[in-house]
Amino acid sequence: MTVADVTKQTERVIVRAHGGGGEMMARLIQDHILAALGNRTLNELTDGAVLSTTTSRLVFTTDSFVVAPLEFPGGDIGRLAVCGTINDLAVMGGRPIGLSLGMIIEEGFELSSLDRILNSVADAATEAGVPVVTGDTKVIEHGIGGTGLFLNTAGVAELDDAVHLGFSRIQPGDAVLVNGTLGDHGMAVLSVRNGIEFQTILKSDAAPLNGLIAEVLAAGVDVRFMRDPTRGGLAGVLADISANAGLGVEIEEDRVPVNTAVRAAAEMLGFDVLTVANEGKVVLVVPDKDRERCLGVMRRHRYGRRSANIGRIVTGDPPLVELITRTGGRRIVQRPYGEELPRIC
Amino acid sequence: MTVADVTKQTERVIVRAHGGGGEMMARLIQDHILAALGNRTLNELTDGAVLSTTTSRLVFTTDSFVVAPLEFPGGDIGRLAVCGTINDLAVMGGRPIGLSLGMIIEEGFELSSLDRILNSVADAATEAGVPVVTGDTKVIEHGIGGTGLFLNTAGVAELDDAVHLGFSRIQPGDAVLVNGTLGDHGMAVLSVRNGIEFQTILKSDAAPLNGLIAEVLAAGVDVRFMRDPTRGGLAGVLADISANAGLGVEIEEDRVPVNTAVRAAAEMLGFDVLTVANEGKVVLVVPDKDRERCLGVMRRHRYGRRSANIGRIVTGDPPLVELITRTGGRRIVQRPYGEELPRIC
Repeated sequence: MTVADVTKQTERVIVRAHGGGGEMMARLIQDHILAALGNRTLNELTDGAVLSTTTSRLVFTTDSFVVAPLEFPGGDIGRLAVCGTINDLAVMGGRPIGLSLGMIIEEGFELSSLDRILNSVADAATEAGVPVVTGDTKVIEHGIGGTGLFLNTAGVAELDDAVHLGFSRIQPGDAVLVNGTLGDHGMAVLSVRNGIEFQTILKSDAAPLNGLIAEVLAAGVDVRFMRDPTRGGLAGVLADISANAGLGVEIEEDRVPVNTAVRAAAEMLGFDVLTVANEGKVVLVVPDKDRERCLGVMRRHRYGRRSANIGRIVTGDPPLVELITRTGGRRIVQRPYGEELPRIC
Repeated sequence: MTVADVTKQTERVIVRAHGGGGEMMARLIQDHILAALGNRTLNELTDGAVLSTTTSRLVFTTDSFVVAPLEFPGGDIGRLAVCGTINDLAVMGGRPIGLSLGMIIEEGFELSSLDRILNSVADAATEAGVPVVTGDTKVIEHGIGGTGLFLNTAGVAELDDAVHLGFSRIQPGDAVLVNGTLGDHGMAVLSVRNGIEFQTILKSDAAPLNGLIAEVLAAGVDVRFMRDPTRGGLAGVLADISANAGLGVEIEEDRVPVNTAVRAAAEMLGFDVLTVANEGKVVLVVPDKDRERCLGVMRRHRYGRRSANIGRIVTGDPPLVELITRTGGRRIVQRPYGEELPRIC
C-alpha cells in the first residue's frame, strides 16, 4: 500500500491508533463521536462529566478495560478498572461514592481467574473506600475476545461547591506537579507481554488517588487543574493543557521522576517515557505560592512519596510544550500520534 | 463427556448459560461476584443501585451490549444501549439525567457503520431526553470481537423522595400489568441472525420507557414494583417477584399480549415466548384499585397502546408462578436455566 492508501484506509475504518489517546483518537472523537452525540457537557471532554441534580453537583465517568495480559506485576485488569475510574472522578475534584462493574467474559474463561480478578476489584475498592454498587455480566462465545475478559467501570462522585477546576483557571507562573515516577504501568505491561526480562522487575503503579487528592484539597491548595496521565502519558496531558489553556508548558527533564529500570527499558525499546501510560499518577497545576505546601501534603501520602515540581506554565506564541533537557537544550514535546502501546489499559 | 463431566466443567469455567439471565447466572452472581464484592447496595440485585448523596438519592446502573448482529429490524446496538440503561433507571423510579457510553471497537471496523450506530445512540438519547455526557473508546486488534463492536452504557437518575418501590411492597391481590406485546426483541434478532424469513417482519421493541413510567408515577398510581423483562423475559421477572416477595403469581395466557408473527416464530423454533428478551417493556405491580387508572395512562402513551392486565399476585405455599392456559389448565412457569438466546442484547 502507498502512503495515500493507508491514509485513505484510516479515513474509512477504525485503526489501532484511534484508541491510543493521541491525535488520531482526538480526530475520531471530534469528527464522529461529538458530531453525532455532542452536547455542552460531553463537548468538554473532561475526565468525567459534571451533572447538576436539583440539589447538588455530581461527577460521572466511564472507562473500558481491554488490557493484555489480564495480570501483570503490580496489578491486574480488576485493580486497573477500579483505579482508573476512581482517578477520573478524583481529578475532577469529586468524592467518589459508587462504582459500576460491567463484565464481558468469554465462554471457557476459568472461574478461578475470574475469582482472582474479582477479589482484586474488591481489594482496590476497599482500599479506595468506594463500593461497587451495580453491575452487569455478558458471556460471549469462545474464540472472540483474546484475553477472555473485558471490564467496564463507571463511577459517580459528589462535587463540593468549593471545588472549581478547569483549563481556564490555569495561569502563567503556575507550577506543574506530579505525584511520582512516570511510565511504570506501561513499561510493566509491555515487559510481561513480550516476555522481556530486566534486572529489576517493572511494576505497574495502578493505585486509587482519591485519598491523596482529597488531602490536597482539604489542605486548601488552590488547585487549578488535575488530570491523570493514562493513555498518551504526561505528553498527552501537557498537550491538552497547552491547547486548551492557550499557554505554554516548560518541563525540566532532570526533575521528572522516572525509575531507573523504567528509563532503561524505555530507552532499550525505543519508547519516550513521557508518552507511556500511568495508572496511579496525577498531574496538578497549582499557583506557585501553593507549590511547596502541596508537595508537602502529597509526599506524606503513600502514593506521593516521590512527588515533584516538574515545571511551570509560561506564555508563548504559539503556545508549546517544551522539555528543557539535562544538557540545557530544549525540545518540543508532542502529543503522541496514535497507539504506541496497544491494549495497555 | 458424561453429564458429570459437563457439570464439573460448568463449575470450573464460564459457559454461555452464565450470561443468560437464568439460574446459572444467578449462581455466578451469588457464588463469585457477590462473594467477592458484596455490600448492602450491590446485594439488592436491583436494576440499578440507589446511592445517597449528602442531599439527595440517585439511581446508578450499567449494562454492556454484545448483540449480534449489530443492526436488526427495529433497532441496533446503539438504540439498545441507550434504551436498556434508561429503562433500568426508570423501573427503579428514577428520572434519568445522564448516560455514559463506553465503546470497544475492533480494528478494521467501518467508520460508516460506527457513524450509523452513533447516530442511533443520538436519536434514542434525544427521544428519551437524556444526554450522553461522558464516554470512553478502546480499540482492540482485528479478529477478536465477532461483530466488531461492544458497547457499555451506564446511567444516573434522580430519585424522588416520594418514590418507594420494592419486592417488600408487593401484596396479594395486586395486579400485574405489562405495557404491550412480549418477545418482539428476541425473536426479531433471532430471525435476522439465522436468516429466517417470516411472512411478517419481526421488529424489536427497543424503546425508552422513562416517559411512560414518569406519566404513571405523575398520575399518582401507587406502583409497588417495576422491572423490565430483558434477558430471561417475563418468566425471569415473575420468578424474581415470587422468590423475593415470597408470594405466588398467576398469569392468564390469553391476556398476555403477543404479536401473531412472534407467536408463530417462537412456536416454530421451539421458544417459550415468556422467556424471550424484550427491550421496550415494563412489568408493573400495582394495587388492584389503581389498575384501570394505570392502564389508562399507559395506553395513552405511544409505548403503551397494547398495555394489559395479565394477572395477579396470590398467596401460595410454596409460592409459585403459574400460567392459566387458554383451556383453563395450569402450568408452572419456571425461570429459564441458562442462555436460550446468546448475544441477544
